[in-house]
Amino acid sequence: MNKKEIGLKNLAKIDGAAAEDVFEALKNIAPDLNDMMLEFAFGTIYDRKCLDFKQREMITITSLLTQGGCENQLRVHIQASLNVGLTQEEIVETFIHCAPYVGFPRVLNAIFAAKEAFKKAD
Amino acid sequence: MNKKEIGLKNLAKIDGAAAEDVFEALKNIAPDLNDMMLEFAFGTIYDRKCLDFKQREMITITSLLTQGGCENQLRVHIQASLNVGLTQEEIVETFIHCAPYVGFPRVLNAIFAAKEAFKKAD
Amino acid sequence: MNKKEIGLKNLAKIDGAAAEDVFEALKNIAPDLNDMMLEFAFGTIYDRKCLDFKQREMITITSLLTQGGCENQLRVHIQASLNVGLTQEEIVETFIHCAPYVGFPRVLNAIFAAKEAFKKAD
Amino acid sequence: MNKKEIGLKNLAKIDGAAAEDVFEALKNIAPDLNDMMLEFAFGTIYDRKCLDFKQREMITITSLLTQGGCENQLRVHIQASLNVGLTQEEIVETFIHCAPYVGFPRVLNAIFAAKEAFKKAD
Amino acid sequence: MNKKEIGLKNLAKIDGAAAEDVFEALKNIAPDLNDMMLEFAFGTIYDRKCLDFKQREMITITSLLTQGGCENQLRVHIQASLNVGLTQEEIVETFIHCAPYVGFPRVLNAIFAAKEAFKKAD
Amino acid sequence: MNKKEIGLKNLAKIDGAAAEDVFEALKNIAPDLNDMMLEFAFGTIYDRKCLDFKQREMITITSLLTQGGCENQLRVHIQASLNVGLTQEEIVETFIHCAPYVGFPRVLNAIFAAKEAFKKAD
Repeated sequence: MNKKEIGLKNLAKIDGAAAEDVFEALKNIAPDLNDMMLEFAFGTIYDRKCLDFKQREMITITSLLTQGGCENQLRVHIQASLNVGLTQEEIVETFIHCAPYVGFPRVLNAIFAAKEAFKKAD
Repeated sequence: MNKKEIGLKNLAKIDGAAAEDVFEALKNIAPDLNDMMLEFAFGTIYDRKCLDFKQREMITITSLLTQGGCENQLRVHIQASLNVGLTQEEIVETFIHCAPYVGFPRVLNAIFAAKEAFKKAD
Repeated sequence: MNKKEIGLKNLAKIDGAAAEDVFEALKNIAPDLNDMMLEFAFGTIYDRKCLDFKQREMITITSLLTQGGCENQLRVHIQASLNVGLTQEEIVETFIHCAPYVGFPRVLNAIFAAKEAFKKAD
Repeated sequence: MNKKEIGLKNLAKIDGAAAEDVFEALKNIAPDLNDMMLEFAFGTIYDRKCLDFKQREMITITSLLTQGGCENQLRVHIQASLNVGLTQEEIVETFIHCAPYVGFPRVLNAIFAAKEAFKKAD
Repeated sequence: MNKKEIGLKNLAKIDGAAAEDVFEALKNIAPDLNDMMLEFAFGTIYDRKCLDFKQREMITITSLLTQGGCENQLRVHIQASLNVGLTQEEIVETFIHCAPYVGFPRVLNAIFAAKEAFKKAD
Repeated sequence: MNKKEIGLKNLAKIDGAAAEDVFEALKNIAPDLNDMMLEFAFGTIYDRKCLDFKQREMITITSLLTQGGCENQLRVHIQASLNVGLTQEEIVETFIHCAPYVGFPRVLNAIFAAKEAFKKAD
């Protein structure tokens, strides 16, 4: 399997439905970017040892919360976090843990993204 | 125990030595800020259920890497991560995982902070 | 009075209506976060001496403008700024003052948030 | 010609229509801010030698992508980029180039802003 | 007086010594940038009505704390804050006020910048 | 040639010396990260059509200036910009162009990084 195939395989376990949406959205404007995400993010990074998918999604949603302005990606990775086995409580707790480090506003944005993602998931 | 006492107890398990340095550095200019960190960060947040200290430090170093410009706090929390049981490999892997989400420059800054912290710890 | 009660008392003077909305929005997903904001932000920080509520809201809206992506919180604190006595002109001038420090894009975002908040307030 | 007049002349070449919208949006709340953008951004900066309008717009959209949360300004400057002669392919490639430096989430936000701007432009 | 002269006059009241250092540092590489700061920041923005120099410096140091990575400029404006009449206590309190909005790490960076600036000022 | 070999070939044209330093610095702590930068940044992104190396470095230094706190990477890419044919004047002008979009503080940080890089290069 090449990296793109590995990426597709990993993505199927993490969030196949959202991946389809992004692939669709990118195909007429930047299809190469979709390949890069498959090869680098899902085929290389997520395929590495040492941390499991639950830890990796916890890191991803923390990073997305912290940089701000990435609520779309955050909703996708909140769903992905549920898919790989994080509970709703663990996701919310991850966000609350960030409050002393990034302040309440970014945490509130993440919590409200979670609220939407949880509603859609239920 | 009040929250400050709980904070001191948790901090002793996480990173007592660094806490002393920060307390010393703040005592003539903003001693109240030290109390707030004890009460809110270590007495309230770190004392919550649902995530353990290893997960909490993984979230903290991810958030510090992502916001950038916090290398001093990152070095303290890399040491704290080691103290609560994360391995050097897990810390480095946490940083590498962030590359697709924040780009290489911030990841490199964190890796070099880890290099210094690991050398000091050894 | 404990810190939560002090926070509620201060919040009533600053922005009771918005606080109700946030409390409602958080109660099913992260009610503890609401308590933390009451205790730490409004019960501890806003209750301190040295700066008055008008100065504190001026600092808050500057920080929200600067970090970007916090337009929801900005609208709440623009209303809060009006509630504690800042004029519309002072709020706009605070945002304009930031232009040489953060550039025009974030300032424009804040001005348009103010435009909405002022319209709602009138 | 004073700087405001130079700014208006440059802006007409870069993005007259969007400028009208911003002027309209600001005139009741912060008309001075509109003048500052005309004088400083378009009358001083864009009027300088050494880089042409195509290079300047490439720099502008890179900076807007990187800081995040400025999708409104990004859409305006994607249109401006087309107006001064950058192709859709060059704009998309500028955004893709940023992936190793800022990560995929901000790049995706910019690509989707481009998609909207291109559709409106066609 | 043109805007550059107004800027020089205002700067003399705010922070003449630091201005000399920046002018010296820029003169061989980007002297025009020095003029722009004089004309736009000190000749236009600081010269406006509605807010006084103390309020303007309070906004400036809040914005610099919040964006992070601007400790050099922060030290200059902490000195400027003292020059226009803010007390050391008010400067520290401004930084502490930001904790719930940006988190402790950026606040600590600002407090330590203040510690250096206060020591140099005494 | 595989992507790593393409990356090495491109890197040799862009900044061989700095690449050696980074390779050395990473080899004991995160050698895989070095490979990822070679494969993704230099073997994939810099190898794409549509934009030349001069345009790509202009985008890179703009992105590094804008995100802040990346002065080490900025110095490397200022040297790389010179290597691929950008003049000192064009690099400085790129930074000055950013002033209306990110404010003066980040621009000053980049100018001072350029000053160091130019001195080292001469």
